[in-house]
Amino acid sequence: MAIYRIDLSYDGSGFQGYAKQDGERTVQGVLESALETVLRSSVTTAVAGRTDAGVHAYGQVVSFEFDGDIEANRLRKSLNGLTGQEIAVKSVGRVADTFNARFSAKWRRYRYVLSTQPTDDPLMRHVIWHVHRSLDLDVMKAVGEAFVGRHDFTSFCRSVEGKSNVRVVEEAHWSEREGLYEFWVKSNSFCQQMVRSLVGYAYDVGRGFAEQGNTSEVIEARNRSLIKTVAPSRGLNLWEVGY
Amino acid sequence: MAIYRIDLSYDGSGFQGYAKQDGERTVQGVLESALETVLRSSVTTAVAGRTDAGVHAYGQVVSFEFDGDIEANRLRKSLNGLTGQEIAVKSVGRVADTFNARFSAKWRRYRYVLSTQPTDDPLMRHVIWHVHRSLDLDVMKAVGEAFVGRHDFTSFCRSVEGKSNVRVVEEAHWSEREGLYEFWVKSNSFCQQMVRSLVGYAYDVGRGFAEQGNTSEVIEARNRSLIKTVAPSRGLNLWEVGY
Repeated sequence: MAIYRIDLSYDGSGFQGYAKQDGERTVQGVLESALETVLRSSVTTAVAGRTDAGVHAYGQVVSFEFDGDIEANRLRKSLNGLTGQEIAVKSVGRVADTFNARFSAKWRRYRYVLSTQPTDDPLMRHVIWHVHRSLDLDVMKAVGEAFVGRHDFTSFCRSVEGKSNVRVVEEAHWSEREGLYEFWVKSNSFCQQMVRSLVGYAYDVGRGFAEQGNTSEVIEARNRSLIKTVAPSRGLNLWEVGY
Repeated sequence: MAIYRIDLSYDGSGFQGYAKQDGERTVQGVLESALETVLRSSVTTAVAGRTDAGVHAYGQVVSFEFDGDIEANRLRKSLNGLTGQEIAVKSVGRVADTFNARFSAKWRRYRYVLSTQPTDDPLMRHVIWHVHRSLDLDVMKAVGEAFVGRHDFTSFCRSVEGKSNVRVVEEAHWSEREGLYEFWVKSNSFCQQMVRSLVGYAYDVGRGFAEQGNTSEVIEARNRSLIKTVAPSRGLNLWEVGY
């Protein structure tokens, strides 16, 4: 058995998320179906980040086992022919037998983009959350700083019974360019809706709806109902995975 | 009679161009229909650049006459509510009685973006021409320089019987950023398919298909058949209009 790694980008707009679901169009469904067509064999993939419906990926990583020889670049081209323009397979390669796209990942980095410009950018409507108001970037930066560290992020998670929401956030910072605010966050892993909840909370503080200087208390409260806004998925992008 | 100016952006992907055509979905059609709904009156607009099907605009300008008072910011909001996410009305304002978006324009600036990266960017597939090969940017820059000046651009125009193809190109230059090549061109006006033909020709030179150093002769020949490639419309954007 050999293990292969696929690096891919996708526009999540037209998918019900990454993970396969019966009767839904998903990235995993389209990718595995293309793999099965080319390899003439059933294939199950592991993935670094199970992105939600409408979330994009610049740097998603997938792995799968296959019993046989694969000409990697040829597979890359065949997959790109089959998966359509919404998915781009950037590379395919054989990796160590111990590699698993999900369990070998040491960290994930996400980017979130929102716009404070008064009007929408029609060409970017799938990738930007247009908030149509001004925000206090300095207080949002302070919120970002408070996220950094090892915390129980239950307040920011759609929790799964019996699963820990403790995560180690290594970076969480805002930058600004021409009215576009970018939030970059890196963690060992993320619970469900975590980035969108972090952004939603920072946005609520930035617009003066939630109290400033309160972030650590909101984290410590471990109370999901304290988060009033979950940012829409279109602004979110799984940017990079570290192994 | 008062004259009003509208500044707008649009994603041209879903339109059969700017100019109204019977039975086709066009930007002008959608915009005039929205104007007529709000103003309860028939409206005819003039436009700075009649973009082709699939061509985008960041800085399109439209004007119209109206016999009555308009609360400009309210009209802007109403239009944005009616035209959908593909069109963004950035501003509406009353202008001098002599203003005409088409005839008052002194220059237009277009941007064209192509990518030499080995794989597509799915999020940008509507706005980038992915050429999937490396290009010689230095020779493309030389081609751009040769376009500058007052020339008969018949070789680069889908000509209209009896209309001159003489244009004054003030700027035509290429820049590069992370494998994305941007062509910026400014002229008093453009004949049909001119920018896409200029880009197609530069691309043919850049990939070694057309001869280098020949640009002035190709212009002087005034022969459309010398241009073998018209770049696809998705990479083109009407960026700015000067008055």
